[in-house]
Amino acid sequence: MEKILAHIDANIDASLARLFELLRIPSISAQPAHRQDCLAAANWARGALQGMGFSARISETAGLPGVIAQHHAAGPDAPHVLFYGHYDVQPADPLALWHSDPFDPQLVDGPRGKRIVGRGAVDDKGQVVSFFEACRAHIAVTGGLPVRLTVLLEGEEECGSPSLTELLTQERDALKADFVLVADTNMWNFETPAITTSLRGLAAVEVTVKAAARDLHSGLYGGIALNPINALTRILGDLQDDQGGIRIPHFYDGVAPVPDELQESWNRLGFESDEFLGQVGLASPAGEHGQSPLAQLWARPTADINGISGGYQGDGTKTVIPAEATAKLTFRLVPGQDPQAVVRNFERFVRERLRPDAKVEFKHQGAAPGFAMRLDAPFMRAAQRALREEFGKPAALVGCGASIPVVEAFKTQLGLDCLLAGFGLDDDCIHSPNEKFELACFHRGTRAHARLLAAFAD
Amino acid sequence: MEKILAHIDANIDASLARLFELLRIPSISAQPAHRQDCLAAANWARGALQGMGFSARISETAGLPGVIAQHHAAGPDAPHVLFYGHYDVQPADPLALWHSDPFDPQLVDGPRGKRIVGRGAVDDKGQVVSFFEACRAHIAVTGGLPVRLTVLLEGEEECGSPSLTELLTQERDALKADFVLVADTNMWNFETPAITTSLRGLAAVEVTVKAAARDLHSGLYGGIALNPINALTRILGDLQDDQGGIRIPHFYDGVAPVPDELQESWNRLGFESDEFLGQVGLASPAGEHGQSPLAQLWARPTADINGISGGYQGDGTKTVIPAEATAKLTFRLVPGQDPQAVVRNFERFVRERLRPDAKVEFKHQGAAPGFAMRLDAPFMRAAQRALREEFGKPAALVGCGASIPVVEAFKTQLGLDCLLAGFGLDDDCIHSPNEKFELACFHRGTRAHARLLAAFAD
Repeated sequence: MEKILAHIDANIDASLARLFELLRIPSISAQPAHRQDCLAAANWARGALQGMGFSARISETAGLPGVIAQHHAAGPDAPHVLFYGHYDVQPADPLALWHSDPFDPQLVDGPRGKRIVGRGAVDDKGQVVSFFEACRAHIAVTGGLPVRLTVLLEGEEECGSPSLTELLTQERDALKADFVLVADTNMWNFETPAITTSLRGLAAVEVTVKAAARDLHSGLYGGIALNPINALTRILGDLQDDQGGIRIPHFYDGVAPVPDELQESWNRLGFESDEFLGQVGLASPAGEHGQSPLAQLWARPTADINGISGGYQGDGTKTVIPAEATAKLTFRLVPGQDPQAVVRNFERFVRERLRPDAKVEFKHQGAAPGFAMRLDAPFMRAAQRALREEFGKPAALVGCGASIPVVEAFKTQLGLDCLLAGFGLDDDCIHSPNEKFELACFHRGTRAHARLLAAFAD
Repeated sequence: MEKILAHIDANIDASLARLFELLRIPSISAQPAHRQDCLAAANWARGALQGMGFSARISETAGLPGVIAQHHAAGPDAPHVLFYGHYDVQPADPLALWHSDPFDPQLVDGPRGKRIVGRGAVDDKGQVVSFFEACRAHIAVTGGLPVRLTVLLEGEEECGSPSLTELLTQERDALKADFVLVADTNMWNFETPAITTSLRGLAAVEVTVKAAARDLHSGLYGGIALNPINALTRILGDLQDDQGGIRIPHFYDGVAPVPDELQESWNRLGFESDEFLGQVGLASPAGEHGQSPLAQLWARPTADINGISGGYQGDGTKTVIPAEATAKLTFRLVPGQDPQAVVRNFERFVRERLRPDAKVEFKHQGAAPGFAMRLDAPFMRAAQRALREEFGKPAALVGCGASIPVVEAFKTQLGLDCLLAGFGLDDDCIHSPNEKFELACFHRGTRAHARLLAAFAD
């Protein structure tokens, strides 16, 4: 193992150069204009894996393709690991807030040493390449890998994974494995690795309230004509009670309290909500009263309005009663909640509050349940051992407030459990301008991945 | 008088051509890019008045200028009428809903004969030109006017009249008159003229709720970070109670019940709210329970959200908690309400509901009180006589739900009462796409103005 780690240390510049190649490809899956760039990123990954001796290929879908690669030289008795990552990235807007071109990656000085800046630096290209480089070191030093390894890269993670079901279905045989290693999560902090034991799900819905057949003059109709913005805000203003709870009936059906064991481990993390919120200019946990800040982030569901629009948007005043108003909502869901039921209950909540003359339309925009990980699985114990060795301290067992729909897809479609271990940091600005990945995190992540591969085989 | 009316009838096509010249000028006062167009409209009006023998000039302000013209040949013993109109128009958006270019006026067939279609067709260019053409007929037939006449055209009526006080102050001497004839209101219906005896005032305010210093990922912060769209909708959703009343404390201070005499005259109008609302796809009066539909429109104050925006506005979903959300509100006010107090009480209403971490900013965008007209003034009796002669039936005495801040300004700054008589119809789509003015209303409005000028002199 020491030789493998020394190889990684000695070749970190070459590893970084390979990451930068991938970061230069603007593989924005949400924007059709970047389809060719997405294909280029997939081909880049296929080439990198083939160069290490994997059999690798592109797997076409109705949308953007997957990349599938196999290195099974460890033989039929070795554990079989399926690695999952994604080669696509979020849109880079607003461009004006970036300090450098999002697709011209830079190595810049930061308070923790050098950092890699660019769209996808950590989410998820940096994490994927750190795993690739761990494999490269194993192969360079030992001539092979300690486990049977299959790699799956998705190209639509940042736009809701519309083709993932198709991909998993058509590649069911190629993706057989003992478990999935998912590299898309964060460390607890710069010194402490983490294993994510729960993810929140997501249900997205757009609601439009319509009233008059056309925009109306508020002087001629104001007072007698229903205003759809007033009507929509009246409905949405009712979403939360004074204690921060969501008022949609049955919203909390199936939501379990945080287990004592997990709450106690969270207490030991020393999480300071003042510091966490202070970094973004906030001070007070805004969720349910009586729930700890970490529970609000990891174990409690939410109802966030992500966008709202209606009526006049320009400068000054327009005395209009518009014909309609629209809001986009997402619900972060926890294990036990049925995403379809949440959407159904929200729709009923809206319809029950509709005033006369209001009509409502809904658009559904994806739904995935929350996910809780098996704490007693063998790969989980192996991972804890490997991370302790690399970082000199136990991994934090944490929750994550975001969704990785693929985790649920692996469980429901392939029967596979996931191990979520990644090396990003909370301040990496993923999905925001100036996304970055600490060079030290990239480096130690590569070393940790090398140790993980060995530990899985013990 | 018959000769004057015959002259109007014989020259209606030329009158219409002059109106079309003015309608082709996109004098949108709210949009700085149209400043030159506004000046062109002012110059057009000055030229038209000079051509009829008025002394006419542009009166500069810090904003868009006024046009002032005088025709005092009737001599010092003749009544002195001040005519008021405005040369600016509303923005034309949404452009996609117009059937023709808003600034390429068309004469098209409608159920009541030809109609003039274009932005400003009735509000207020059509009304202004119908008065000009009445003057033109008097001068052509008699060589002069029966009254001393001063004309004042404003260029900022559609954006809150920010320079009106300056204009009235600097032109105080030039604007001396017995009363003001304001041509910016509607008939009761196609057959029945109307004199408007009350106007609602307006207070406009924009409210922005801010939370985090930047946009946040709702997976990483959702539940613990205050969402300013949720916060704003929660505040605004509280504006109205279940009976349609406005919940801002002291909002109704000074609001008097409708006088019996006026309510009885309204009862005689045969107003059918089903028909009125049905024309725009609505069915139910949305205002205060227990108030008649006409009282909701004319005699009760409102709180309408005219625009709202925040977060992601594009297609699909973005899991963002935005940094801020904004709403634009206007309050329609009735006589007795203090506009400044309404805005102040609204601000307090918002601040009292601010959750921790929410910051609020307000922009004030104009305020004017409601207005009630003197029913016993001599010019009022003259107007009723002239309108009865032209239309063969008495004018309806109606309220109006919209604001004409100039009416209050004339009263407070110059001590002048206003006579509100205009020839628009409720279905003219003012401030909306496909604004129109019935040709018959333009024509009869011109004839009625000619009779009014004569009646004032009797």
